[in-house]
Amino acid sequence: MSGRFVTVEGCEGVGKSTLIAGLKEYFAREGYDAVFTREPGGTPAAERIRSIILDPDCPVTPHAELMLYAAARAQHTEEFILPALRAGKIVVCDRYSDSTLAYQGYARGLGAEVCERLSVLSERGAKIDLTLFLDLSPEKGFARKGGADKGDRLEKESLDFHMRVYEGFREIARRNPRRVVSIDASLGADEVLSLSIAAMKERGIVHG
Amino acid sequence: MSGRFVTVEGCEGVGKSTLIAGLKEYFAREGYDAVFTREPGGTPAAERIRSIILDPDCPVTPHAELMLYAAARAQHTEEFILPALRAGKIVVCDRYSDSTLAYQGYARGLGAEVCERLSVLSERGAKIDLTLFLDLSPEKGFARKGGADKGDRLEKESLDFHMRVYEGFREIARRNPRRVVSIDASLGADEVLSLSIAAMKERGIVHG
Repeated sequence: MSGRFVTVEGCEGVGKSTLIAGLKEYFAREGYDAVFTREPGGTPAAERIRSIILDPDCPVTPHAELMLYAAARAQHTEEFILPALRAGKIVVCDRYSDSTLAYQGYARGLGAEVCERLSVLSERGAKIDLTLFLDLSPEKGFARKGGADKGDRLEKESLDFHMRVYEGFREIARRNPRRVVSIDASLGADEVLSLSIAAMKERGIVHG
Repeated sequence: MSGRFVTVEGCEGVGKSTLIAGLKEYFAREGYDAVFTREPGGTPAAERIRSIILDPDCPVTPHAELMLYAAARAQHTEEFILPALRAGKIVVCDRYSDSTLAYQGYARGLGAEVCERLSVLSERGAKIDLTLFLDLSPEKGFARKGGADKGDRLEKESLDFHMRVYEGFREIARRNPRRVVSIDASLGADEVLSLSIAAMKERGIVHG
């Protein structure tokens, strides 16, 4: 496994897409062989699973939701992430297991243990080299996005739910200080990108 | 939980649908409050998951498949089976956790342990009172159905795969002698139905 695996995590509206666009430009400019993907989704079958999870007209129970995320992750990891890592690429994934732990484990209250057991099974041996956690509280994130009442089923959850997600991410960051780098997402987009590149340099994912 | 939960298991083409039609008629005639359902599926969300699993044009990895079955089961059990049992009904389900164990655990080689751990999570506390295992080897079942080369993705698997499924079911029956009743499915439909009703009588699910 000669590639490197970077995940981007955080609440809704914290600037993950902006950071990822910036990373894309950076890797292209610097000549790195990087691929970008997202969860849930990333492959045709996983995208179909994603469409079930996110459909507001087709509500699923919390445990079914958890297992759908795990199924999509197993598919995505085996079909896309692991082959790319084996080919030596840098893989950047918008959300991964930490999102399941924060949303289902902490915010939905299913518990960290059951999520972590399913993650071990669904990660199929993939090892995350760096997680960029865009640290911004949901109030600020939603204000940026223009309110919490639009969008898919997850975005329609209450602010209270998203606060629990946020606390979940912070707990994950505290428990994994080597893997997870918290980046103050209230900073400007350029600064968030610079801090992210600095974290990758520190870990030898890109050269200084 | 005052209802009773009966599952029907076995390889393809062994006569599950015929038995279930017979049970429907029997329960209606005798005035029992019985509901019939199937896995994977049984609710709108679970049917959507089923359509992903069974689509020959959308292959999923063995672990993703296992977790999709678990997700569909959690949804089906919480949304349909448990409420029916709580309402005192007899629930008859065409395939349940034993199918996952036979197909994914034994035939796909994912192992019994991981399947059983996921089953505990996906069964949401439902307790099977009786499993009717229609015992017929795949050669005979396929001959009845008119060959193994038709139908959905699962039916297209090799005979060797279906032999492993069959051995899996027999192992499950051996390990659960109180719950699982093996019925010789080479017998006529009337006889299979009579033996099934006798097994339900023995367990007090219906009156003698």
